[in-house]
Amino acid sequence: MTIQEAAAWLKGHDRYLILTHKRPDGDTIGCAAALCLGLRGLGKTAHICPGTGETHLFTPYLAGLLAPDDYIPDAVVSVDIAARGLFTQAGKPWLERGVDLAIDHHPSQEFFAKETCLDAGRAACGEILYEILRELGQVNRQTAVPLYVAVSTDTGCFQYGNTTADTHRVAAALMDTGLDVFPLNKRHFRTKTWARLQVERLIVERMHRYEDGKIAVAPVSLSLMDEAGATEEDMEDIAAFLGQIEGVETSVTIRELEEGGCKLSVRTSGGLNATKVCALLGGGGHAAAAGCTVPGGLEKAETQILAAVRQVEADG
Amino acid sequence: MTIQEAAAWLKGHDRYLILTHKRPDGDTIGCAAALCLGLRGLGKTAHICPGTGETHLFTPYLAGLLAPDDYIPDAVVSVDIAARGLFTQAGKPWLERGVDLAIDHHPSQEFFAKETCLDAGRAACGEILYEILRELGQVNRQTAVPLYVAVSTDTGCFQYGNTTADTHRVAAALMDTGLDVFPLNKRHFRTKTWARLQVERLIVERMHRYEDGKIAVAPVSLSLMDEAGATEEDMEDIAAFLGQIEGVETSVTIRELEEGGCKLSVRTSGGLNATKVCALLGGGGHAAAAGCTVPGGLEKAETQILAAVRQVEADG
Repeated sequence: MTIQEAAAWLKGHDRYLILTHKRPDGDTIGCAAALCLGLRGLGKTAHICPGTGETHLFTPYLAGLLAPDDYIPDAVVSVDIAARGLFTQAGKPWLERGVDLAIDHHPSQEFFAKETCLDAGRAACGEILYEILRELGQVNRQTAVPLYVAVSTDTGCFQYGNTTADTHRVAAALMDTGLDVFPLNKRHFRTKTWARLQVERLIVERMHRYEDGKIAVAPVSLSLMDEAGATEEDMEDIAAFLGQIEGVETSVTIRELEEGGCKLSVRTSGGLNATKVCALLGGGGHAAAAGCTVPGGLEKAETQILAAVRQVEADG
Repeated sequence: MTIQEAAAWLKGHDRYLILTHKRPDGDTIGCAAALCLGLRGLGKTAHICPGTGETHLFTPYLAGLLAPDDYIPDAVVSVDIAARGLFTQAGKPWLERGVDLAIDHHPSQEFFAKETCLDAGRAACGEILYEILRELGQVNRQTAVPLYVAVSTDTGCFQYGNTTADTHRVAAALMDTGLDVFPLNKRHFRTKTWARLQVERLIVERMHRYEDGKIAVAPVSLSLMDEAGATEEDMEDIAAFLGQIEGVETSVTIRELEEGGCKLSVRTSGGLNATKVCALLGGGGHAAAAGCTVPGGLEKAETQILAAVRQVEADG
């Protein structure tokens, strides 16, 4: 479906239920909230499926938008969900009953819905939602808030390589509604919890550097987490932390697991193939970001991943 | 002068010298480089005044653009310079001889030049340079690099409160030239020196919190700087570091000075007037960012500033 067709389809139904993906991020929550508000603006009944997964950062945008227990929709729409395996517990029954329209930007889209509106060239699903809501005359200061959250969080506030000229054009159009982006930017990009700050401090204190600082390894033990008072929510994107150090080309974050063993995240910026490194230890991923899980403790994991890095370096 | 008048004026001369402000930032350097490249694109002779002040981050953009010793211009243009006191040592003689055109975005512009092209509503001088170069048909992939550096660095990569819809429109237009922003974003927003990381670690280790974490104070001693191996270049915008901690409304960074005494930087986000706080200790600034310098050591400075904060709080 094109943007225009999706907009026409959304005009043609009434009682909407909107589904988000599990482990929700700003894009799926922002898209759901914007779509829900936009449909209500058209006089439709619209709710978001509850059980999105609580997150300190994003659930505030869902206030007043979650479906009551006895809600029976006549149209089910998913936003930013690429695959069947990414439905929430509460969303799975709706997947079985049938999703009517999937709106998404992932190239890995599984086409689980009856209709799909997909643009894999877009940095965020929020950019597609913006185009649809514009078509519906529903881009206003109220919908601009979750749309901006969607677009800005999925691009690291316009810093990641997925950012395009269109991303900036969408941001400009959202600001034209009178949207004040400063508090949103402060909340999502310029705020760290006390525990996160302690995690970062302890990582800097205990990390190891190799090959003149080109390789950096951070062992994150369970006791480090305890000492920092950190929970999983404080660890968002922690694998990117070492990559910001000047001169670091390959960084490895090793998390000790509660259930035993270690989870390794490898990030590369100097051309080394992270997937090849992790494949040697049974893992996989992308060229610049990959991961694997190994049995044993932190020290053994560090020795193994360093050996893997050097082997891939040697293979050229 | 309007954008159109400035563009016409720039067509009307030949041998240009471009001046930047002292303690150069991305905006002044980016504007100078873009203007220089744009003028050369028109077939003009153009150079940037040497002695801009070396900075690790920005001087690379000046490669090939600095004026030779014996260069005699027939038109002198300043970019992003608001005041006479902000000329570099090498720029001062040109201020005395007379600046022909000042291009700027600061409301505090002193109108030291014969002609001034000022738009105080713009987040970065780079936005004005973009408009002028567009008028001259000189926005291309080459000039887009320094223009993007100017616009993005002056807005903290579109995060600060000065960012407008126009800022995003300029970024979109620059990306339309084929500009790859990812390496620029990585260099300017996602890279920290090793020494900077150590400074941040030591600040977290040694900072003090008051009033349930609403007030944060970081004493930065000369020995902390030594221990981190940090120079002044590693300390860029360090006063903003504490302000990112969740719950902090008032943050104070206290730098011990080589020459004795301490320099304090106060940042507020909870409504407290930073200028009123610093005025009690003989300083000044803006409502959300102010500073002062006091005699004595770090401990005494901390006691004094806490007393000042509490006094202003009590006065309402």
